Amino acid sequence: MSTSVSLTRDMYFPYARWRMLPLEATVLTDGFWSQRQSINRRITLQHGYQMLEKAGNFHNFRVAAGLADGHYRGPVFLDSDVYKWLEAVAYELHVHPNVELQQQADEVIALIEAAQQSDGYLNTHYQVVEHGQRWIDLDFGHELYCAGHLFQAAVAHHRATRSTKLLAVATRFADLLCNTFGPDKRQGACGHPEVETALVDLYRVTHRSAYLDLAKFFIDQRGKGVMRGMNWMKAEYHQDRVPVRQASEIEGHAVRAMYLNMGVTDLYLETGEEALLAAMQRQWQDLVSGKLLLTGGVGSRYEGESFGAPYELPADRCYCETCAAIGSLMWNWRMLLATGEGRFADLMERQLYNGILSGLAFDGWNFFYMNPLLSQGDYGRQPWQIVACCPPNIMRLLASLTQYLATQDNAGVQIHLYNTATIRAEPSIGRPIALNMQTDYPWQGRVQIGIQGADGSTWQLRLRVPEWCSQVIATINGQPIDIPRVEAGYLVVERAWQLGDVISLQLPMEPMLVEAHPRVDAVRGSLAIQRGPVVYCLEGVDHPGLNLMDIRLDETAPLQADWREDILPGGLMVIQATGQVVESADWQQRLYRRFSDDGVLRQSIPLIAVPYYAWANRGANAMRVWIPRIKTG
Amino acid sequence: MSTSVSLTRDMYFPYARWRMLPLEATVLTDGFWSQRQSINRRITLQHGYQMLEKAGNFHNFRVAAGLADGHYRGPVFLDSDVYKWLEAVAYELHVHPNVELQQQADEVIALIEAAQQSDGYLNTHYQVVEHGQRWIDLDFGHELYCAGHLFQAAVAHHRATRSTKLLAVATRFADLLCNTFGPDKRQGACGHPEVETALVDLYRVTHRSAYLDLAKFFIDQRGKGVMRGMNWMKAEYHQDRVPVRQASEIEGHAVRAMYLNMGVTDLYLETGEEALLAAMQRQWQDLVSGKLLLTGGVGSRYEGESFGAPYELPADRCYCETCAAIGSLMWNWRMLLATGEGRFADLMERQLYNGILSGLAFDGWNFFYMNPLLSQGDYGRQPWQIVACCPPNIMRLLASLTQYLATQDNAGVQIHLYNTATIRAEPSIGRPIALNMQTDYPWQGRVQIGIQGADGSTWQLRLRVPEWCSQVIATINGQPIDIPRVEAGYLVVERAWQLGDVISLQLPMEPMLVEAHPRVDAVRGSLAIQRGPVVYCLEGVDHPGLNLMDIRLDETAPLQADWREDILPGGLMVIQATGQVVESADWQQRLYRRFSDDGVLRQSIPLIAVPYYAWANRGANAMRVWIPRIKTG
Repeated sequence: MSTSVSLTRDMYFPYARWRMLPLEATVLTDGFWSQRQSINRRITLQHGYQMLEKAGNFHNFRVAAGLADGHYRGPVFLDSDVYKWLEAVAYELHVHPNVELQQQADEVIALIEAAQQSDGYLNTHYQVVEHGQRWIDLDFGHELYCAGHLFQAAVAHHRATRSTKLLAVATRFADLLCNTFGPDKRQGACGHPEVETALVDLYRVTHRSAYLDLAKFFIDQRGKGVMRGMNWMKAEYHQDRVPVRQASEIEGHAVRAMYLNMGVTDLYLETGEEALLAAMQRQWQDLVSGKLLLTGGVGSRYEGESFGAPYELPADRCYCETCAAIGSLMWNWRMLLATGEGRFADLMERQLYNGILSGLAFDGWNFFYMNPLLSQGDYGRQPWQIVACCPPNIMRLLASLTQYLATQDNAGVQIHLYNTATIRAEPSIGRPIALNMQTDYPWQGRVQIGIQGADGSTWQLRLRVPEWCSQVIATINGQPIDIPRVEAGYLVVERAWQLGDVISLQLPMEPMLVEAHPRVDAVRGSLAIQRGPVVYCLEGVDHPGLNLMDIRLDETAPLQADWREDILPGGLMVIQATGQVVESADWQQRLYRRFSDDGVLRQSIPLIAVPYYAWANRGANAMRVWIPRIKTG
Repeated sequence: MSTSVSLTRDMYFPYARWRMLPLEATVLTDGFWSQRQSINRRITLQHGYQMLEKAGNFHNFRVAAGLADGHYRGPVFLDSDVYKWLEAVAYELHVHPNVELQQQADEVIALIEAAQQSDGYLNTHYQVVEHGQRWIDLDFGHELYCAGHLFQAAVAHHRATRSTKLLAVATRFADLLCNTFGPDKRQGACGHPEVETALVDLYRVTHRSAYLDLAKFFIDQRGKGVMRGMNWMKAEYHQDRVPVRQASEIEGHAVRAMYLNMGVTDLYLETGEEALLAAMQRQWQDLVSGKLLLTGGVGSRYEGESFGAPYELPADRCYCETCAAIGSLMWNWRMLLATGEGRFADLMERQLYNGILSGLAFDGWNFFYMNPLLSQGDYGRQPWQIVACCPPNIMRLLASLTQYLATQDNAGVQIHLYNTATIRAEPSIGRPIALNMQTDYPWQGRVQIGIQGADGSTWQLRLRVPEWCSQVIATINGQPIDIPRVEAGYLVVERAWQLGDVISLQLPMEPMLVEAHPRVDAVRGSLAIQRGPVVYCLEGVDHPGLNLMDIRLDETAPLQADWREDILPGGLMVIQATGQVVESADWQQRLYRRFSDDGVLRQSIPLIAVPYYAWANRGANAMRVWIPRIKTG
């Protein structure tokens, strides 16, 4: 582990309001996410390696490299899973050297290198199955999508190890792309965005402006309405209905939409083109005002794995692919860097603790692809999927999670996510800062930050005040801040910090009931339970003998938080609530009847709500986030 | 038009509780369905003919017949649209001779005959595209499905015209099927059921038991779990998860499920095998207790156009394909014949007036494929579709609608649907009966039936008491029936009928509010308006300047029916109701917030509800069937 923060050029994005810290600047020393990173490190990454072997991903590279015989296996985009796994491993190796992982990564990189064609082209499906017929199906071929994931893995690996081996593979391919696509060359863009954000990142590491130009070219290609779409959806499936700068609606395949927006925001961060940021702001508003699930899940529809109409937010058949929530987090991160507005970090937090974390089982071995908010009991976790995009996406997110905790600018340091950690920064050259954050977040709202490196100079510390928090109490060295200065969702404290200074934040975490906008039909008359950033759910296993579809929540009864070690490893905070059970025997197995507003007296029962992310860790069983309240029957 | 009822052998189903009347025995002389049949006759059938030319359906036959050059056009199942149109034309010609239609039908039949291969095989896709590679994809090839529609068209044409020309084409193909498939021959069944019901009908006309055996063989093939399924759905997509006799759940692709059940019930009607009927009863109960939309629409999910989980009944994204509702009606008709229970006719009525009729525009030219119960305004009607199964399905249903009005058994006559009509029957040989039904149904609940042919003998008249009717008042020759005898949903009147006797039914039709089962999340806290069999909706065009998503229904205010001639051709009954508009400005474009049970006083506004089937006849605009009631905000 390096001991000084060496902020490289590639972390400075010209139009970023705030600047990223290098991955190693922040270390999770304990707490909630440290536990999850540990499981990812010890279990999930090895599981991934084995599954990539079993599912044929490595096999495909061997066949493409001429090292093995056989047919290509799996869907066209299988290469990308290898790259995402490699990206995750690179982040891990950056902070936690590990001989076994290092060897596996080196072998896989050697295999990738061996499979690359002499002119730089690399895609095992097209090399093996289509025999070199490149770019014949940009809409669905996923060649550029896979290339993008290669580039991201290469950038991560280079940043982690300073090795140029995988980066050289990436730039050879990227150079081929630059020679192939462009205003005077081949037109078109990939049906699944990804290469755009990756090219910008590759530019940041290599400083080759051709990569940035190509990212812009691909982004500019969209909106011609020429892509094929899927089922009832036409070009909007691929975000090809309107040009990027004119887009106001978030639409189509949710992962595609999020990945495109990552690239567009990256392009803004490098070029400062206001039209791009304005389009992103419009789309973001469209998302949060009509198309976002309470868990931060995105993509309301199974068909096309896509966004739906405004307020179309079904609890049962929302798709909420894990990858889409991860993509949204990555997009919101870029928006946060661009604007310095806490609402983007708020959404990241919502997604992290809920709609993303639900994607990985406590055991580190099993995954959700869809993350519904209601299940009647038949949906369980899987160790892998035929379309296995989500597992390695979770791996790379967890391995790189520390990068999202804090940023810096010339004025000081900003903290976005709370977890026990050490953070080192250098807002202005030669003035290193070290912070030591202690917290039991998300179970307790107390965050304590000790200043461990400071030279008495004046700088700003910004601490995010989460959207769910109605009142923030802050003290410095035990003295309350009387009139806290809050800007764009951040408490701003500017002073001449001394070694040993301690700033404390108290974010009141009483359990609360949440309601949805009155235009949302799907959860009308229902309430959800939330505490801090954590959204809760009822699980069938905690309510034996009851059908969760018959439970009503007593909205007038108190909610009680209760720490429990006995439910799942590591413990979790449950919420005790009160409910009633509806008798529907008088419906006589009918679905509809003449309305009668009879009140039925029912007996009170205790309810136990567990964090949404924790559901289905005790087997597939019924679950619901939104609970009808008593008044609506 | 023939003047005597010649009940042929093929209308006697051995295990039918009630027997069908020949198509010509019932004539709609005026009223609601007479108008719709007239539009079908004058406009829709000709439109269909032109669209079949334009879409390439006829072209495909010409190419297969060697009469034209070119490629096959459209999806694999295009032949079936021709057959369904032809079936509709046959029903029409049966009752209303028409030289132009007759010529078109003859030409099309000649074309079909010319395309048939010498061994009887006939499928233009497989002949033109696959060059005779038959049965290579039973799961999705639709060869047997198309064959089934050919057989049904041939049976209808034969019954209408006594011509054997198309019937000969059908039997040649059916004989080939008998020689190809069977216990000791090729195994498997079509991924899209249809041939099963058609083979039974072909057997009824031809008395060739091999066809009945083959229908049974195909039905017995299901449930081996070998069919491929679609997307996340496996074999259940094709109703191939469990054997037919063990099935309790209605599942998978909705049209496929309904068509299979038509065939299974037909097989029961011929064989009397109780296990088949029991399985159908279980599935029916599963349908009506958890998977039926208020409009009678079936298929809750877009993905796989399929049934969903119990109580998964979204208003916005229910698929409710027109063909599925038609298939359900046809299945329920067979269940009615098998059991004599009015609940099946009740469901037919629900579907006819709502989820089926919505599929055809007032102009006779435009169609709905999906029939949602909520639209935010972007869904409009189309003159045809690439997958154009629904338009000719509506045509054949309307053209043959009279067959569903009445049945007979040895004891008398049963009337299931009410419309102004003449009905002739012959419950026992040589005792012809003639009835003259007068009614303004579904706008008025008064039905008057005059006995126009009777010889003073005693027989039973059964009149369905609709499920929506809370109280039935009946008179004979003006004298009230004091204690009406009601059996299985029918008023039973047994007497020595005299010429000139008049029985009157008064079915009170006050508008009513309907609620859904408390397990249905999607419409919780919402009510629908219904009057008689007609389900109502609010349409945006009647509420200018308002967003229908913001409207609340005052469940305490009276509902008022009002006949209006000025809204759509032919007039319709609207319902005046009272509502309120929710202000959501204080939500500040957020979707979720801390719950507060504040009541907001809002101003009352008048609401106008129109029949659901009539929506989107004044352009694409917002619509909702379920309206949140005031109490739930």
